[in-house]
Amino acid sequence: MSGSIYGKLFSISTWGESHGPGIGVVVDGCPAGLSMNEDIIQAYLNRRKPGQTPYSTPRKEGDRVSILSGVFEGFTTGTPISLIVYNENQRSSDYSEIAGYYRPGQADFTYDAKYGFRDYRGSGRASGRETIGRVAAGAIAKSILKELGVEVCAYTKAIGPISINYNNCSKDNILKNPFSMPDMNAAQEAEAYLIKKMEEEDSVGGLIECLITGLPAGIGEPVFEKLDAVLARGLMSIGAIKGVEIGDGFKVATYSGSENNDSLFYDEKLGIVKSSNHAGGILGGISDGSEIVLRAAVKPTPSIAKTQKTINKNNENIEINIKGRHDPIIVPRAVVVVEAMAAITLVDYLFQNMTSRMDRVKEFYKK
Amino acid sequence: MSGSIYGKLFSISTWGESHGPGIGVVVDGCPAGLSMNEDIIQAYLNRRKPGQTPYSTPRKEGDRVSILSGVFEGFTTGTPISLIVYNENQRSSDYSEIAGYYRPGQADFTYDAKYGFRDYRGSGRASGRETIGRVAAGAIAKSILKELGVEVCAYTKAIGPISINYNNCSKDNILKNPFSMPDMNAAQEAEAYLIKKMEEEDSVGGLIECLITGLPAGIGEPVFEKLDAVLARGLMSIGAIKGVEIGDGFKVATYSGSENNDSLFYDEKLGIVKSSNHAGGILGGISDGSEIVLRAAVKPTPSIAKTQKTINKNNENIEINIKGRHDPIIVPRAVVVVEAMAAITLVDYLFQNMTSRMDRVKEFYKK
Amino acid sequence: MSGSIYGKLFSISTWGESHGPGIGVVVDGCPAGLSMNEDIIQAYLNRRKPGQTPYSTPRKEGDRVSILSGVFEGFTTGTPISLIVYNENQRSSDYSEIAGYYRPGQADFTYDAKYGFRDYRGSGRASGRETIGRVAAGAIAKSILKELGVEVCAYTKAIGPISINYNNCSKDNILKNPFSMPDMNAAQEAEAYLIKKMEEEDSVGGLIECLITGLPAGIGEPVFEKLDAVLARGLMSIGAIKGVEIGDGFKVATYSGSENNDSLFYDEKLGIVKSSNHAGGILGGISDGSEIVLRAAVKPTPSIAKTQKTINKNNENIEINIKGRHDPIIVPRAVVVVEAMAAITLVDYLFQNMTSRMDRVKEFYKK
Amino acid sequence: MSGSIYGKLFSISTWGESHGPGIGVVVDGCPAGLSMNEDIIQAYLNRRKPGQTPYSTPRKEGDRVSILSGVFEGFTTGTPISLIVYNENQRSSDYSEIAGYYRPGQADFTYDAKYGFRDYRGSGRASGRETIGRVAAGAIAKSILKELGVEVCAYTKAIGPISINYNNCSKDNILKNPFSMPDMNAAQEAEAYLIKKMEEEDSVGGLIECLITGLPAGIGEPVFEKLDAVLARGLMSIGAIKGVEIGDGFKVATYSGSENNDSLFYDEKLGIVKSSNHAGGILGGISDGSEIVLRAAVKPTPSIAKTQKTINKNNENIEINIKGRHDPIIVPRAVVVVEAMAAITLVDYLFQNMTSRMDRVKEFYKK
Repeated sequence: MSGSIYGKLFSISTWGESHGPGIGVVVDGCPAGLSMNEDIIQAYLNRRKPGQTPYSTPRKEGDRVSILSGVFEGFTTGTPISLIVYNENQRSSDYSEIAGYYRPGQADFTYDAKYGFRDYRGSGRASGRETIGRVAAGAIAKSILKELGVEVCAYTKAIGPISINYNNCSKDNILKNPFSMPDMNAAQEAEAYLIKKMEEEDSVGGLIECLITGLPAGIGEPVFEKLDAVLARGLMSIGAIKGVEIGDGFKVATYSGSENNDSLFYDEKLGIVKSSNHAGGILGGISDGSEIVLRAAVKPTPSIAKTQKTINKNNENIEINIKGRHDPIIVPRAVVVVEAMAAITLVDYLFQNMTSRMDRVKEFYKK
Repeated sequence: MSGSIYGKLFSISTWGESHGPGIGVVVDGCPAGLSMNEDIIQAYLNRRKPGQTPYSTPRKEGDRVSILSGVFEGFTTGTPISLIVYNENQRSSDYSEIAGYYRPGQADFTYDAKYGFRDYRGSGRASGRETIGRVAAGAIAKSILKELGVEVCAYTKAIGPISINYNNCSKDNILKNPFSMPDMNAAQEAEAYLIKKMEEEDSVGGLIECLITGLPAGIGEPVFEKLDAVLARGLMSIGAIKGVEIGDGFKVATYSGSENNDSLFYDEKLGIVKSSNHAGGILGGISDGSEIVLRAAVKPTPSIAKTQKTINKNNENIEINIKGRHDPIIVPRAVVVVEAMAAITLVDYLFQNMTSRMDRVKEFYKK
Repeated sequence: MSGSIYGKLFSISTWGESHGPGIGVVVDGCPAGLSMNEDIIQAYLNRRKPGQTPYSTPRKEGDRVSILSGVFEGFTTGTPISLIVYNENQRSSDYSEIAGYYRPGQADFTYDAKYGFRDYRGSGRASGRETIGRVAAGAIAKSILKELGVEVCAYTKAIGPISINYNNCSKDNILKNPFSMPDMNAAQEAEAYLIKKMEEEDSVGGLIECLITGLPAGIGEPVFEKLDAVLARGLMSIGAIKGVEIGDGFKVATYSGSENNDSLFYDEKLGIVKSSNHAGGILGGISDGSEIVLRAAVKPTPSIAKTQKTINKNNENIEINIKGRHDPIIVPRAVVVVEAMAAITLVDYLFQNMTSRMDRVKEFYKK
Repeated sequence: MSGSIYGKLFSISTWGESHGPGIGVVVDGCPAGLSMNEDIIQAYLNRRKPGQTPYSTPRKEGDRVSILSGVFEGFTTGTPISLIVYNENQRSSDYSEIAGYYRPGQADFTYDAKYGFRDYRGSGRASGRETIGRVAAGAIAKSILKELGVEVCAYTKAIGPISINYNNCSKDNILKNPFSMPDMNAAQEAEAYLIKKMEEEDSVGGLIECLITGLPAGIGEPVFEKLDAVLARGLMSIGAIKGVEIGDGFKVATYSGSENNDSLFYDEKLGIVKSSNHAGGILGGISDGSEIVLRAAVKPTPSIAKTQKTINKNNENIEINIKGRHDPIIVPRAVVVVEAMAAITLVDYLFQNMTSRMDRVKEFYKK
């Protein structure tokens, strides 16, 4: 058990159910002396918030974060940092009916199978709100990465059949539309498409892409903690993600070796450069200093208003319509979670890499 | 550091370079009383062996495994099991030339960046031979799974553009052709295709699929040790794998919710059944008792005879031709490694699940 | 870093400083279906409370615990349990002076050395209040142990030169005097002794003894997670503890083998019995089914009113008198912490032992 | 399970039984670029060897170590280092009789209770030979510590009633007598005493002391990985150790605070100095830069020739005489194991401390 702890040197321990008193995280292993305050974390947490589209849910989520430990006079102390967001506006009566059956595509059935029963209000621990802890911790991770010149940027690459056009993209656009897309045209098309999905009482999936720049070469711990392997686990642990790939990902299955190999060459001005980046910045599980490109596939929201068949707890076959308004898409909200998980993972492996070489350890401790 | 240990209750610790004295693994946490001997492990290890195709490499790899501890009078004792395969026939002179430059698509560059230097013979720790330890441990994991009624079966789903036809498949075929394909027709096409690739002095990638049957519902530890997340990490840690997906994987990005949700229904004879399995057997990170379907994308062999550009250690731009005969494809050899990693991971999580419910723990310890 | 997480299957993650908003713990890995509520935890936490002696500190500590997650309708859900105690009545002005120097016997100097600075209010993370999280988690651990028929009982064995008389002891007395002693006479003597120490502006140390009964044989994971080794670490991690021993402990250094060996014999009524228990219930790092006896040495309270020499942050030699009233002894408050750490550790190893034998694992999963 | 792995960044994974093919260890996390070879490790391993006293056992143990991976051209590569010592001269027939009963003071009974059966040859995994892996790994750890200016020195402080006289001690003496004592007079007395014990067909215990010098301040990870706590666990995991203390240890139970507190003062030439060292060099679980003093109590050898009572596997009460010649004392052989465990632990925590401060991490990664 104890599956809610993540990380070896930089660890996060998340807790909380959608309808309990609150949701939070304890970050253990953050170095002392990092500038930190609630505003920094709040700003990042706000990227989770819905409410900016015509169809989005009326559940207003304030989600104000409090720092309960580990920060003193504006700086981290090196001791565990406890963050909490108190749940408000979660009306249990919204969900009382679902206690008796298993919603298709949700974790109701599997939680019952594992634990014998479940907190049926909302999705309990399986709720999307569980990501609050991850994102709050992600804000701290991003601050550390910033100190080290590393940037992580995730965005929506596709919503259903609508993909971004790379010639039309800018990082600045990501926060300017409710779909976290770097391409404003695609965002417009996506909106129209999603309104249609809502009318059909349905939902759709999508793709999230994550770029990591400025990561030095050498990060990753072969063989079981290769950087791509641990990033894959971090991303796949986010609810609704059904696939993770790096670089050209699944396309390499049909490439030839001559197409796929990235050549190195030396340029007088730029230093060591790669002719291409099919590998996505990681070779042998270790970063090579170039841009890392990850991609995650997100399934459609399981909660749809359409009539669905399922069983209830007495094993009777029934039909249900899930009440309430639900987002027809998870992707835009998951973007910041992908970014947070990548950031948290990178910090842990930047830390672990510090002991790779005896000469560097000796230099660190020279008296 | 210490990235060569995998698992929490059932742990494996691998070691060894392609041109060192040997390669091995220590399996810690195997319960006592499991029937075990070298033949069981050797049989599984033999599935790694090349040498059955017209083009395969002349490097004869005997790879005989020895059990050095943890087994007594034919049964595991509950103490660590140390397995070793001594390296033979690894001629260092084959590789002396590559010490001076970085082969494209290999880990030469990144290992140098991380450690300051590397064992340049073959690929050292980054060699495919590193998987010997994983597969040997996988044999033990599969024995445990067999006792628990769980089966893991991996096979080649595609080689380059050649895919298997599910109407033409049988598990029995997997070991009957050198491509680990369950479809003999596809295997024939693949052979022709690969001979062509060899003539072009090139290589190709492919897809591996892995089915898990008989796993009870309830396995997986939310949120960071969800079963799909840990399986993804296990598979992605295998060299040459660039993507992992579960169920319908990346396709779900374009599904609608009504298409993607699997409905449950109750059948008098079969019990609880799913109408479909887009989820691939895992919901909310926990197994639901149905078949688990995983897929991994394998990149083409980086070592090709074709001329390639790269740099040497003095940052000079050069051209190279990698000598020696190399397999034009990694996929068939990686199949058993995928299966082994899945098996090892499943054992660890079957173990961890035993403490999910207080009533089951109490029953275990009732006096 | 990340030294605030303890346990493998049953994990606790503590956080909080003496003068921050609160102190807490996240318990991860508690099985589902255990009856749990705030009263159970509060009752255990109250054993930390001072205020029952003539000399005890006037700092009134209410310390009310709240459960923020992981419990639903009176039972644990199997998800992380977050517990919090909000700090009240901690006046920062009490401590502002000590920011500039290092109190002898406290962690001021070492925290500064490690982190570059420290939260100087009280003892920050090094404060005795940090144990709130451990004791709260200990309440949950004790509930689990109760379900399994295991009891943990710690008490004060000695305060300075005053030892309990085993002929005069009863478990019922432990909560009936402010020194957690099972011998009421010794408690009276201790009180007189401590009043004297207060008048001398000094403090004294003592011994805590901990008995574990009902633990089945077979618990402990050789070789590095032997039960005595992990209990030693758990106890030694409590502030002020400078030694841990098991069974006859340090006395065995002068025993002969014939004196020290405990013989087994078989009794018709009692079954397998030991003739003595010099080993303290653990052999080869594994419990043998008899009573486990641990002992911890506690140093005197460092904070005394007496004048002491030290240095300030400018490396000037100064003299100080620590203001405020401080307990002349730590021992009675540490008793419940010792008990909690032992309980938490035992739960983790009772869990880990469940996979020791293949036949038991197979029985658990028989379909 | 999996209790044979120790360490977080610098990990060791030991394996092997006294009568299996061999005993070994895999060291994972050793930085690259450390000068290493078999001679360095062999020299340290030789300190385990008996055979230098009138009474010592005739079992000749050659114990030659081989490096199987992780070292290339005289330097560690940063990949796992596998070390093996092949067992020779272990005659199973010596032990066939004990299969049927439980030797008092040994782990026979507890291993049977845990695993259902045991490797009865010698003590299997519970054998003192298991320490070969620890000591071999300890040699590597000591090499790392040497690079960092840290020294670990363990020795016998007492054998039964015979203690060393600190006025008569010199480190150079430790390897000059078969009792690992720094006081040659005490060594002579000990020899006479032990010959007497042999004649009585008995054995005796003792004390081991370990000094750590040159460790910088700041090492240790509060709260659960305090340096004293993790050292206690490391030492207590060694067979036959029944107590661990630091600084003045159990004596502090009777000290007053004014006696126990170590004062800091500033000296022009020496810098920050302590007036005393009752704390043993660790405060709040973190090293303070002064000498660390640990002590471990070792029980007498359980295997004595004297007649002892016990039970056999059919629960019949019997009397036994353990045949063969056994050392009447464990202490001298355990000295190097204590030193090795301390060294291995220190390396892990020197590594973990490197991420304590943001400014140091930033400095490490400055481009």
